[in-house]
Amino acid sequence: MIAVMLAGVTAMLVSLIVTRYLITFFRERVMGQPILGKEDLGPEHHMKKQGTPTMGGLAIILAALAGWLVAHLRPNLALSDQAMILWVGILVMGGMGFLDDWIKVKKRHNRGIFWKQKSYITLGLSMLLAWWLVTSTSVSTNVSFTRASFPGWHLPWPVWVVFAGLIIWSTSNAVNVTDGLDGLAGGSAMMAFGAFAIIAYWAFRNPDVYGAVVNPLDLAVLAAAFAGACAGFLWFNAAPARIFMGDVGALALGTALAGMALTTNTQLLLVLLCGINVMEAGSVAVQMGVFKASGRKKRLFRMSPIHHHFELVGWPETTVIIRFWIISGVLVAGALGIFIADFTRVTDNL
Amino acid sequence: MIAVMLAGVTAMLVSLIVTRYLITFFRERVMGQPILGKEDLGPEHHMKKQGTPTMGGLAIILAALAGWLVAHLRPNLALSDQAMILWVGILVMGGMGFLDDWIKVKKRHNRGIFWKQKSYITLGLSMLLAWWLVTSTSVSTNVSFTRASFPGWHLPWPVWVVFAGLIIWSTSNAVNVTDGLDGLAGGSAMMAFGAFAIIAYWAFRNPDVYGAVVNPLDLAVLAAAFAGACAGFLWFNAAPARIFMGDVGALALGTALAGMALTTNTQLLLVLLCGINVMEAGSVAVQMGVFKASGRKKRLFRMSPIHHHFELVGWPETTVIIRFWIISGVLVAGALGIFIADFTRVTDNL
Repeated sequence: MIAVMLAGVTAMLVSLIVTRYLITFFRERVMGQPILGKEDLGPEHHMKKQGTPTMGGLAIILAALAGWLVAHLRPNLALSDQAMILWVGILVMGGMGFLDDWIKVKKRHNRGIFWKQKSYITLGLSMLLAWWLVTSTSVSTNVSFTRASFPGWHLPWPVWVVFAGLIIWSTSNAVNVTDGLDGLAGGSAMMAFGAFAIIAYWAFRNPDVYGAVVNPLDLAVLAAAFAGACAGFLWFNAAPARIFMGDVGALALGTALAGMALTTNTQLLLVLLCGINVMEAGSVAVQMGVFKASGRKKRLFRMSPIHHHFELVGWPETTVIIRFWIISGVLVAGALGIFIADFTRVTDNL
Repeated sequence: MIAVMLAGVTAMLVSLIVTRYLITFFRERVMGQPILGKEDLGPEHHMKKQGTPTMGGLAIILAALAGWLVAHLRPNLALSDQAMILWVGILVMGGMGFLDDWIKVKKRHNRGIFWKQKSYITLGLSMLLAWWLVTSTSVSTNVSFTRASFPGWHLPWPVWVVFAGLIIWSTSNAVNVTDGLDGLAGGSAMMAFGAFAIIAYWAFRNPDVYGAVVNPLDLAVLAAAFAGACAGFLWFNAAPARIFMGDVGALALGTALAGMALTTNTQLLLVLLCGINVMEAGSVAVQMGVFKASGRKKRLFRMSPIHHHFELVGWPETTVIIRFWIISGVLVAGALGIFIADFTRVTDNL
């Protein structure tokens, strides 16, 4: 537990310092995020956000990495191959996001050069990450919910690679879609990481129920580091945001969240833990579907992702953010409740 | 666990419905909260909050009670004398707050008639509640932190009554002081209640470590009900607030929080779990102390409670709220971490 807390606190402090530094760094170089405005795809009043620095995700990644590394100073914490491979995936996906952010800022347009290719590239990278996980670690290829009472449906490993790749890819994109209001993506990710830290630590403490296959303590440390990093970032990212996380942040967070679900074997619980991201990405899909099915006539929401819909309906921006946080918190609490209830059901029958 | 979740979900839904109803009810009767303005003791820009309905705490209390009662439909959940006595205390303290709110609204002034007497009355009620707890239930009169590795310092029961009464009284007042920005008191209380639900449930699952003296499952249900009730209330109370909780809410929440700490025997952990309230009440005390010690010349903060100081320093209101929430979240997570770390230290030596 000390290692988990050490990771969280270290990551939070590093995140506070580095985010603060990045704000000054980007401000001095007048490198701000181009905002989707009237001519593009965002609400008009978001134009006032023009010029806010982006790429704050760099601070999150660096801080989480620092927290994870510092925790390994504790002698009883072993490095796990799963966490190390996840880190490579997080850094590569974050790197892709960074490239895109950088090009956006340099070209002063909201769409990076990778607008179309990025989707395919990140999908390929996600599959590669899944393939690496399954071939080099003892990750379970079962698809499970909370894992204690039900080990899950077994997938042959090539099928699992496709499944896991799609989870990594879609979670990354869902976090990216969520990242449209100040603090929304960072706050909801923080809660999900906090829950994953508890889930992984719980699995570590109860190997008789969850099996001793994985190294859940290191995964708990990784999740706690990301939760702390998000907390530090949120200090400056909360409304009114002084910096955005950018694609570098969103893709890295999404990869980390999906990776936690895959390695702790709680893939189906991810739907609740990242419920707000599912809702956001789902709103885009539904909007597109209705629009196309109706012959480009009907729109279900005034604008998608759904947070813009509520803004246009008249909710103040902070109201949308905080209400989405509440939904997120309730879903995360519910997911943890289900996780524990499932555990007690098993142990009480032991 | 099902009972705990049932309490939380029920309370949240009832809170959403009742808060929504109260907003309409008070709006129609033009009964709003008189705001501390220039002539009084608050920042000038808070005058725009004039007319926002108050007494939303009624919804919190009703919803938490509903959640707690509904959970008792579960056959395996026994009523505990501690929870029942706490409920009487919560209702009486909330009732005091309600009287004060009502008089304030009717007299259209921020200070109720009880401005001076209220302090003594609530202190007396707090002592009475503590006395009732110690004489009628098996509550521990030890003062402890996390209870697993250290049973605590034993207090003779009359001393404990004074000590516990002071905790109930000061927590209630600290929550009241915190309740000066939209969603601040409700959000931080929600986190603390969530943590208490986990702590009490953990104690229930591990009677070998925590002793089987109390009935912690019922306390976990009570805490979860309050967490859910706060979440539902926060939906409308988040910035910009459409309703305030009022003294009825603050005094009830403070009593419930202190009661949880006393019955789960984690009185010293309360300092972290209610860290934001300690900070807020502390800022008032320090400001007063410095002011008096300097012969009414010096002020440490531009204005106390400290949230007003940060507003006057130039932080936007939402920034103050969300940063205080982050502090609260980090302290609560830290408190839970300490609680679990202490538990594992004991169990690993068992």
